[in-house]
Formats: sequence, C-alpha cells, structure tokens
Amino acid sequence: MSRIAFIGLGNMGAPMARNLIKAGHALTVFDIAKAAVEAAQQAGAAPSASAQACVRGAEAVISMLPESSHVEALYLGSQGLMQAIEAGTLIIDCSTIAPRSAQAVAEAARARGLDMIDAPVSGGTAGAAAGTLTFIVGGPASALDRARPILSAMGKTIFHAGGAGAGQAAKICNNMMLGIQMAGLAEALALGAASGLDPKVLSEIMSKSSGRNWALEVYNPWPGVMENVPAARGYAGGFGVDLMLKDLGLAAEAALAARASIPIGELARNLYSLHSASGAGALDFSSILRLVRREPR
Amino acid sequence: MSRIAFIGLGNMGAPMARNLIKAGHALTVFDIAKAAVEAAQQAGAAPSASAQACVRGAEAVISMLPESSHVEALYLGSQGLMQAIEAGTLIIDCSTIAPRSAQAVAEAARARGLDMIDAPVSGGTAGAAAGTLTFIVGGPASALDRARPILSAMGKTIFHAGGAGAGQAAKICNNMMLGIQMAGLAEALALGAASGLDPKVLSEIMSKSSGRNWALEVYNPWPGVMENVPAARGYAGGFGVDLMLKDLGLAAEAALAARASIPIGELARNLYSLHSASGAGALDFSSILRLVRREPR
Amino acid sequence: MSRIAFIGLGNMGAPMARNLIKAGHALTVFDIAKAAVEAAQQAGAAPSASAQACVRGAEAVISMLPESSHVEALYLGSQGLMQAIEAGTLIIDCSTIAPRSAQAVAEAARARGLDMIDAPVSGGTAGAAAGTLTFIVGGPASALDRARPILSAMGKTIFHAGGAGAGQAAKICNNMMLGIQMAGLAEALALGAASGLDPKVLSEIMSKSSGRNWALEVYNPWPGVMENVPAARGYAGGFGVDLMLKDLGLAAEAALAARASIPIGELARNLYSLHSASGAGALDFSSILRLVRREPR
Amino acid sequence: MSRIAFIGLGNMGAPMARNLIKAGHALTVFDIAKAAVEAAQQAGAAPSASAQACVRGAEAVISMLPESSHVEALYLGSQGLMQAIEAGTLIIDCSTIAPRSAQAVAEAARARGLDMIDAPVSGGTAGAAAGTLTFIVGGPASALDRARPILSAMGKTIFHAGGAGAGQAAKICNNMMLGIQMAGLAEALALGAASGLDPKVLSEIMSKSSGRNWALEVYNPWPGVMENVPAARGYAGGFGVDLMLKDLGLAAEAALAARASIPIGELARNLYSLHSASGAGALDFSSILRLVRREPR
Repeated sequence: MSRIAFIGLGNMGAPMARNLIKAGHALTVFDIAKAAVEAAQQAGAAPSASAQACVRGAEAVISMLPESSHVEALYLGSQGLMQAIEAGTLIIDCSTIAPRSAQAVAEAARARGLDMIDAPVSGGTAGAAAGTLTFIVGGPASALDRARPILSAMGKTIFHAGGAGAGQAAKICNNMMLGIQMAGLAEALALGAASGLDPKVLSEIMSKSSGRNWALEVYNPWPGVMENVPAARGYAGGFGVDLMLKDLGLAAEAALAARASIPIGELARNLYSLHSASGAGALDFSSILRLVRREPR
Repeated sequence: MSRIAFIGLGNMGAPMARNLIKAGHALTVFDIAKAAVEAAQQAGAAPSASAQACVRGAEAVISMLPESSHVEALYLGSQGLMQAIEAGTLIIDCSTIAPRSAQAVAEAARARGLDMIDAPVSGGTAGAAAGTLTFIVGGPASALDRARPILSAMGKTIFHAGGAGAGQAAKICNNMMLGIQMAGLAEALALGAASGLDPKVLSEIMSKSSGRNWALEVYNPWPGVMENVPAARGYAGGFGVDLMLKDLGLAAEAALAARASIPIGELARNLYSLHSASGAGALDFSSILRLVRREPR
Repeated sequence: MSRIAFIGLGNMGAPMARNLIKAGHALTVFDIAKAAVEAAQQAGAAPSASAQACVRGAEAVISMLPESSHVEALYLGSQGLMQAIEAGTLIIDCSTIAPRSAQAVAEAARARGLDMIDAPVSGGTAGAAAGTLTFIVGGPASALDRARPILSAMGKTIFHAGGAGAGQAAKICNNMMLGIQMAGLAEALALGAASGLDPKVLSEIMSKSSGRNWALEVYNPWPGVMENVPAARGYAGGFGVDLMLKDLGLAAEAALAARASIPIGELARNLYSLHSASGAGALDFSSILRLVRREPR
Repeated sequence: MSRIAFIGLGNMGAPMARNLIKAGHALTVFDIAKAAVEAAQQAGAAPSASAQACVRGAEAVISMLPESSHVEALYLGSQGLMQAIEAGTLIIDCSTIAPRSAQAVAEAARARGLDMIDAPVSGGTAGAAAGTLTFIVGGPASALDRARPILSAMGKTIFHAGGAGAGQAAKICNNMMLGIQMAGLAEALALGAASGLDPKVLSEIMSKSSGRNWALEVYNPWPGVMENVPAARGYAGGFGVDLMLKDLGLAAEAALAARASIPIGELARNLYSLHSASGAGALDFSSILRLVRREPR
C-alpha cells in the first residue's frame, strides 16, 4: 500500500479518494474547498493545509482538477509543486486537460527525474463511486506499471494510449466521437419521427444495422425508448452538456494546435454550445435531442 | 413458388434475381439494358420486351431502380404499370428512393386494391450475391407476410419499419447515421494521428469505449488498422462515395419535407460532395478520411 | 394599358394588384380566399370564380403563389391553366419557387407558343405596397420586354438573369448569400460582445472594412445599433425567419439538383430551422442573433 | 519626430519600417533574420544585435510578429522586454494575435506604468508598402493619441475599438465575417453557375441586392468577373488562405475563451483548412471557390 497525496476533491475526486482509502492506501488530501477536505478526513484521509504540505513524503501524487490552467498552476506556477515533490514520487494527473498542458507538466517532471502519467478517466461520478472507472493513460510504460496498483483501486479498465499527453489526446478523440454520434443520432431519430416513424422501432432497426453505435445500444436519447438512461428521467444526471462542451472545446484546441480539420467535431461543439446557451448546460448531453427536435422547448 | 416479374437488373438487381431463380421461383425479367436481360435469361429467367409485358400474369412484381424518378415513371407515368398489373399481384419495390415517392406509388396501388411494400435493402452487391441482404420494409403487415417467402430467397434479415414509405425513411435515417459516424470517425482518427497517436491504438481504445460504432468495429477507414476492409485496398469496392452522397441527399430531401433540422447530416452530405467533386466518387465512402487528413491528396 | 389576370392575392399579391389598377390596367383577379377577391374588387378589380375564368380574354397572366407545388398545380395540373390561356397571352409568374418548377411551366408555355417569364421579387410587403419591388427575371429578352410596362407599375428595378428559371435561381443565390451573411454577422457581433466590444463600435468598424455587407449597412441585427430596423422593435415586421427558411430550402433543393456543395448555405438553413423550431418563425430573420447570443432566450 | 524601436521586419514589418523612415522618424530595428536587418539598414535604419539593445533609448517600441507566442515571448519571457523598456516609452504591437495575449502584455505594461496599444492592421503587403494600412486599435485613448503621428506614417485609417485587446478582438470579428462571406459567396456563385447562371450576371445582380458585400464589390472570387483581383491571376498574391486560416483560428480561440457559439465561423475555418490541406495554403483566400466548385481540382 502507498502513501498517496490526493489533490482535488470534487465530484470525481472525492469518491476516487474514498476508494483508495478503502483499498488500504494512506491518503493525505488537499482541496481549496475546506468542506471537501473535511469530508475526506471523515472518510479516513489526513488533511493538509496546502498542496505543498500535501505532497510531503508522498510516494504518489494524484491530481483531479477541472481545467488545464488549474493543472499548470498546480505543478508549474511560481508556487508550483514540481519543486516540492520529492525524488522518486510518481505523479498521476487524472484531470481532463489539453494534451499540450499535460506534455508541459510531463516535461517538467522529466526534467526533475520524476515519473509521470496523464490518466484522464471516463465513467462519470457513478463509475468513480463504484470504482469502475476507465483510465486512458499517456506516459512511459514503466510509469504506468508503477501506477497500476493505484489505478486498480479506482477503476476497472486501463488503456495505454502512448507517450506523455496521449491519454488526454485519446480521451478527447473518443469524446469528440461520442459527442458527434449522440448529436447525429438525435438528428436521425428526430428526422425519423418527423417522417412518421416510431423512434423505438427505428432505434431497434438502427441498433442492428450499420448505423449502430454506443448511444443506440446503451444511451438512447429519445424518451421512452430505453429505461434507466437520462432520457428516461428528464435528462437528469449522466454526463452534462457543459462537460461535453468542455471536451469538444479541448478537441477544437487540439485541432488548432495540430492544424487538423474537424468540421463535424466543431459543428457538434457549437450545437452543444447553442443548447447550453438556451439553459440546458446542466442536463445530460443526450438532451441535445431537444435542440434538434421541432417542438416548443 | 411464385411467378415473379423482376424489373431492374443492375449491380444489385441481377444477383437478387439469380437468387430467386435458385430458390425455385419462375422469373420474368425486364431492363432497358438488353445485355442485362440476356444475362438473366442465361441464368434461367424468361425475358420480356417491356415492363408492361413483364408483369403480365405475375403473382409478384419486384422493382430495383436507381432513383425516385425512375420508380415514379415505372408505376405512375402515362405508360405506367399501375394499370397493367393484374388484380391480386403483390408489388415489392426494393429501390432506395424518397419516402414521398414510395408513398405516392403505394397510394396508387391502394387505389387499385393491390398490396405493396417498399423494401429497400442494405448489404451491398456482396450481400445481394450471397443472398444475405437486409430488407427494411414499409407497408401493411399483411403485405409483408405475403412477401416474406420471396424476400427470404434474397436476404437474411427483415425489419418492419411501419406503414408505406417507412422502409425508405428508416433506411435513410440509418444511412445518414452511418455517413455521419464514418466522417466523424475519420476526423477523430485524423485528429488523433495529428496529435501523435497511433490510429490502431486509438481505434482499439475507442472501440471499447463510448465512441464505439459500427465503423470502428468492422469498417475502419484508416489504412492498416483492419484487414479485409476497403481502406486495406485503396478504398476499392465497398459502398461508394456517390451512393452515400445519394442517400444523404435523400435525407436532406426528407428533412426539407418534414421541416426537420439535420445540421450534422447536411454538413456530412456536403463533405461527401466536396470529396466526390475532387474525383473520389467511385471510391468506398470510408475514403472520406482522405478529405479530412492533412496531407497532399 | 393591358387586360391582366392576377392570381394569388396574399400579403404580396394584393398590394401588387392594387398598384397595377392604380397604373390604369384592367384587372381580373382570383384567389381561393374569397375575402381577398372581395378586397381587390373594392380596389377596382373584376372578380373571377375560378382561375380558368380569370384568364379568359387576358393579355397577360400574373401569378403570385406560395410554393412550387401551387404553381405547378395552377398551370400544369389536370385542370391546369396552360390549356385555358389564350394564344398570345404573356405569362408572368412572380412566385418564388424552385427553378426546376419554373422551367417545367416555361416548357409547357413554350409548347403552347406562349411567352413566359419567371419574375420573383424582393422588397417585401413594404416594397409591394410602395411599388418599389425588385424583379429578378428569367426567360427570353423579348418576353421580358413585353412585361416591362407591367412590371414597372409594381417595381423599380428589373434584372434579367438569363433564360427560363434563371430569375428563380438568381434570387435563391442572392437570398442564400443574405441568409449566410446575416447569420455570420450575428455570430461576429455576438463574439465581439462576448469579448468585451461594444457592438455599435464594432459595427461601425466592420461597415468600413472588408467585413462590410448589406446587413451591416442597413439592417443591423443587434438591438440599439440602428434605428428603423426590425432589431429596433423586437424583430417585428421585416422578412420572416420562416420565409428565409423557405428560401434556404430552395437553395438546398437547387444544390441537390445541380450536385453543388453548399456547406455554409445548408448550415445556415439549419440554424434558421433551429431558430424557427424554438418559436421564432414569425420574427424578422435578423433575430437569428438570439440563437447565437449566449443569454437566456 | 520620434526615436522608434521596430522589432519584426517580415513581409509587413519591413515596408512599415521604411515608411516610418521616410516620414523622418529615427528607427532602430531588430529581427532574428539578419538579412532583414541589413535591408532595413540600407533603407536608413540603425541595426541592433538584440531586441533588448533595440529598445534602449526609444520613445516608442513597435512590434510586428507572426503569432501570440512570439509576442508573449518578446515582452513577457524570462528575457522579455517589459523590464528593458525605459519609463515613458510607448508600446505599439501591430501583430495580429489573441486578445488574451494582447491583454496579458498590456497588463504587464500597465504594471510598469507604460502606455501600450494593440494595433493590428489590415490592408496587406500592398497597403503596408503604400502606407495606406488600416489600424484597429485597443487601449486607452490617451495612448492612442500619442501613437497617432506614428501610425499616420504607415496607414490612412485608425479605428479605436476599445480597451486593451479590443483591437485584436475587432480585427478577428471583421476577418471572421470576411472569411464567412467569401466562402459563402463562393458557394452562391458555384450554385448559380451549376444552375445555369452566368457568374458575371449573377454577381452584378447580387452586388445591387441584399446579398451585396465587400467581396462582391471589389474582390470577386470567380475568374473573369473582375479585373485586377487575385481571381484574375490564378489567385496569386492577395491575402493567403493560410493567413485567413490563422485569423479564423484566432476567432475559434476567442469563441472558446468567451464561451461564444460561432457555428458558421468554425465551419468556414474548417473549409479553409481542407482547402489548405489540399495544397492551396499560399493562394489568395478567394481561391476557396475551387474547393466548392464541382470540377477536377
């Protein structure tokens, strides 16, 4: 078992930390929100007053923060951790951020001789609570091997996507695909319904045909087609529109950086943006159906 | 076994007719191309000099034509078949056309008291030859039940999508979804590769994640990721760009008719159109990768 | 002065007919709405009980109908006018319809030896009332020359775009450009405002720069930038979202027919469609700003 | 007359510096390309061996660099100028960069008590040579007033868009509008031509109608419609596709930063990106016509 510094106890970080404690790891935690630290303390973690204090003596540092700027500030800022972290410590950043930012942090870690992986997750808050997250990892295989026992306490599946930043890049590509096919599916179902088809029948046909995809199989956006999906409960819970919008923004950033063309990806981003702007940001992303379906919203 | 009039012996119609003959049906055939009629004759069909002559005495009429205008002209034109077809005959149109056109023909059939279904297929020329097509059927259940023994000689799967035109509408929705997810996948793989990922590794990750879809599983567009797909042979064979463009055009028509919004569907249509205009119309549709990948074409 | 049969007395047709009467022409009118015929009668027109009766003895027939299907039915239907119209009569169709439909009617007129032009208008109901419409004409120059004295009573500007259907095609291209630049301008102003710019200052800069266009000069969509535009009165009046949507639908149809790629045009169509679906169909089309501006709608 | 440090002597910077010399200003110059420094020296400038040396004793510093990263490195890097520039010096950054970067530099200038404006230009290399550039300025009015005599030596028009970064934001919005309307115009002309219209006639009609815009009036993309435009000489010269692509990338960045929706702007970006990827990056941006026109490229 390891001494782990865990920084960032939000909706995802808090249950991930709890699973590490349950697995027997010794956790020291930090978050700018004191209430989050106190909750983790009740779950068995040792509290820290600062990120710098948190990483002292840690064998591994895990960070789970909202955006690139937070991760860069945490590790690379003028008060950044990269100097505070002790030799031999393994760094695991589970935040979903720009590959460029992940690479900048990895470069600084390498300069200090520290092992680091970027390990963004999928599976949502439910997966975080159940310990069934998927990790998409970038970084050296040796660093990933060190991290496996820790990641296994929080998730079930680990993909190794490539070198530093590759975890972020692969997650971004996957989520762009997801955002596209959910919006495309919403259009297809709405077109079918407007043409007189029963969305349930159409969904069954498509799910056995060349139009099939993850959303058709387990996450149908049309209310009444599937049980136990966000569409069945007014799009509450699930993966929020604003989170999809964030990931599609990362895809757009990555495309700008790599000089890539993603016409459909950027259109999808804008559709979720229009949808968010109409007040739907907190709904599940499958509610994009409401944007494209012709009816009073 | 039935006496069947088969009209339209193109790349799809010819092998479908052969499978009906193999199954023991008595075929009379017609096509405007004499060579096609002669080839069918050698396979065991009786030739006709005209569509009118072809349908005489038939228990079922099957048509397999390229576009809405051909089907409308065949059945509804001033020399149209709707008057020539004898009472009690079952009409099966396997063409992929606009739902509106299918409904117009069905309406005329109903007025004559004839059973009719629209039964567009998927599975391509390979499926037509192997007798493994999928039929997506619109029309009354009773008419479909009469058609089943005939369809079964040409295909393996039969979906009942709804009333007249519903087969067309459902096929259009499915193929729009397919066109969107192939183009979206091309973008995702190209973005990944431009960001330094190995497209094969990325494909493996996505095919086990929420980005998974039919194309990732059996039809990957990136050369070298899969064997036995068009991408592995320079995009030869398969489902052509211009055929996808036709189906996305039907989707656009349907959206105009139904006042539906399909922003991604219409963008996909335009991407395949740009791709076709650059000379790729005859390549497999997965070659859309070439449009979005940054490299000299 | 001419004896003119005028068919279609809607928001546009009624004031156009009145201007012809004012100019001294002898009008016989028909509309399926009796109230419209009665109103024209009070303005000095002779009423007809049917379109067939209306065209009897006319030197010129003018039609002003909502859609392609209406114009085709009027002239080409089983009870169509093409046989009823007398030799030597000039046909002027002012409806905005598909070029294909205009060409079909022109073809039938040519077969009868009748002169015909398609002459869709721009200028809206205000231009119709003031007699300041613009006509964009397709058809032979000789037919247009015959029509000039009549058109001049209703409008100020006459463009000759080419042969049959060219008036429709040119109007569609112009209005697609208009729809694109209004939506694009809305995006530019909203992006500027979100970036901290004053939309009025930004509009002034752009209207003197390479971004300038008709909308910037006389039809700014941002409330408060210009007086006497729909944006200054809650987007009431003007050119409705649903009319722009209709014209962009004609552009999409034309692109399908001509195998043209109009990615931006079709995206614009879908944006107006989303906007209409949210309940804005009757507002002026410059209200598209509301769709792209991030604020509660 | 002022002592001016001019940094960045590329295609734009070199002629701008020459015009300042002609107007009687004393120039000290720096560029990482020695040949550029030598050419400026021959035109009458004093050479510097480094940016730090260049700004010594200057009353004003002008920078004209390719990208945000260069400007940030120049002023804010560990060897950055912000400490080397002497009190009282006016900073004028003429680069076209992200508003965020401009604001970061302005913030650092403000912290040192220095006046600064962002003053991106339009008018291209021809305008730079002729001294007829347009400056779109962000920053305090007092700083702009100090800059006017200097800017006037290089350009004819000065717009004051607002506070720090507003010059960049306004230029980005204008150029996004320009990119959209050029691509939209290309679609409209190509659709018209495919529908049988003469692009010259169509252009004349549109330039007098609601579709009119800057491109129609002075920069028509269809070869043969206008003389003395890039389309008349194989799209040589003018404003390059890759420059438009850069500006649309800045618009996308700004939209991400401001949470704005620019569906058409981002689609336009992707169209220029596809066009560039096909090898057209160095052609004038009006060559986007080639992308959307259906003919072998």
